[in-house]
Amino acid sequence: MAARTDEDHNAKMAKLKVAHDRIVEGKTLEKGLLIVHTGKGKGKTSAALGMVVRAIGHGMRVGVVQFVKGAWETGEKPVFDRFPEFVEFKPMGEGFTWDTQDRARDIAVAREAWDEVKRMIADPAYKMVLADELNIVLRYDYLPLDEVLEVLANKPADKHVIVTGRNAPQGLIDIADLVTEMTLVKHPFREQGVKAQAGIEY
Amino acid sequence: MAARTDEDHNAKMAKLKVAHDRIVEGKTLEKGLLIVHTGKGKGKTSAALGMVVRAIGHGMRVGVVQFVKGAWETGEKPVFDRFPEFVEFKPMGEGFTWDTQDRARDIAVAREAWDEVKRMIADPAYKMVLADELNIVLRYDYLPLDEVLEVLANKPADKHVIVTGRNAPQGLIDIADLVTEMTLVKHPFREQGVKAQAGIEY
Repeated sequence: MAARTDEDHNAKMAKLKVAHDRIVEGKTLEKGLLIVHTGKGKGKTSAALGMVVRAIGHGMRVGVVQFVKGAWETGEKPVFDRFPEFVEFKPMGEGFTWDTQDRARDIAVAREAWDEVKRMIADPAYKMVLADELNIVLRYDYLPLDEVLEVLANKPADKHVIVTGRNAPQGLIDIADLVTEMTLVKHPFREQGVKAQAGIEY
Repeated sequence: MAARTDEDHNAKMAKLKVAHDRIVEGKTLEKGLLIVHTGKGKGKTSAALGMVVRAIGHGMRVGVVQFVKGAWETGEKPVFDRFPEFVEFKPMGEGFTWDTQDRARDIAVAREAWDEVKRMIADPAYKMVLADELNIVLRYDYLPLDEVLEVLANKPADKHVIVTGRNAPQGLIDIADLVTEMTLVKHPFREQGVKAQAGIEY
């Protein structure tokens, strides 16, 4: 790429600043967001955990419910355990894994986790609620989609709710404020025979 | 969506488990990954922060260098400050914002931040290094791309390096192990006049 001159650069930066200030000035609404991280790429849960960290740093109380991964010991747990006043971490979904062949049990587990999410959404003490892998549960019809959408659509206005998992249902996307799709560009599992790495994937 | 029968479900789950086990069995390589989060969507930095949290939870030492956002007080900093033995957090890039109209100064700031990243990559004490918004700096030619790619391509084999920022250069994608593109599906800034929210974006 050809090097830009200082003058070019400064003119471009000044223009960007004007555009940026104009955008920020117009945006003054503060509200709790319904956020969805979906897609086949990585980073859906990680990005939600990053938001949890930021919320903790701002002194918000956060509720985290894991719908699927609860059976594993994950890297984030010992960190969140150091902030018991800010993070309530519920690794539900025990036994909800590839090994489970008991649909009735999975439904009961999903229901229990969803009841936790509902409680946290209703409780003003929580400023942010993360329903991790809820989309997976919806994908397998373990919870009635209508019920879930009704609760999320009617969440308190000042509360952030984050839902993760691939295959987010269209109804959820429709009511969400912010939807990001994580797209796989390159993946070492597939291309290089690399196993899941501590610190990256769990 | 039609409810699936238990038998359908169990058969599908059993099949998935076989496929899943086969994939995991074949993947035994442990190696440090060069990871890139790019795209116009949100979650690039958040997902990297989530990985930092997991790494901390596994007792790894992590170095974090912010190339652009250093001028802001961010939510993640007070959290990471609680783990001084595990996280070295360097909010460089002071003054590197839309306000900066001094290209020479920006280049100097980028160089200083890059020197930190190089030091952390070379030092075996760090198991993970996050170069946050490095792609932005490359986009504006503030650092020589060739130099950056050479350092990243020759990083120690057991070290994870994460690079974030939109417009990742193709050369970086070519040498990366894992590339995720965050795609914007819906964004409240644009559609609803909502301002940046604490806990979500900073």
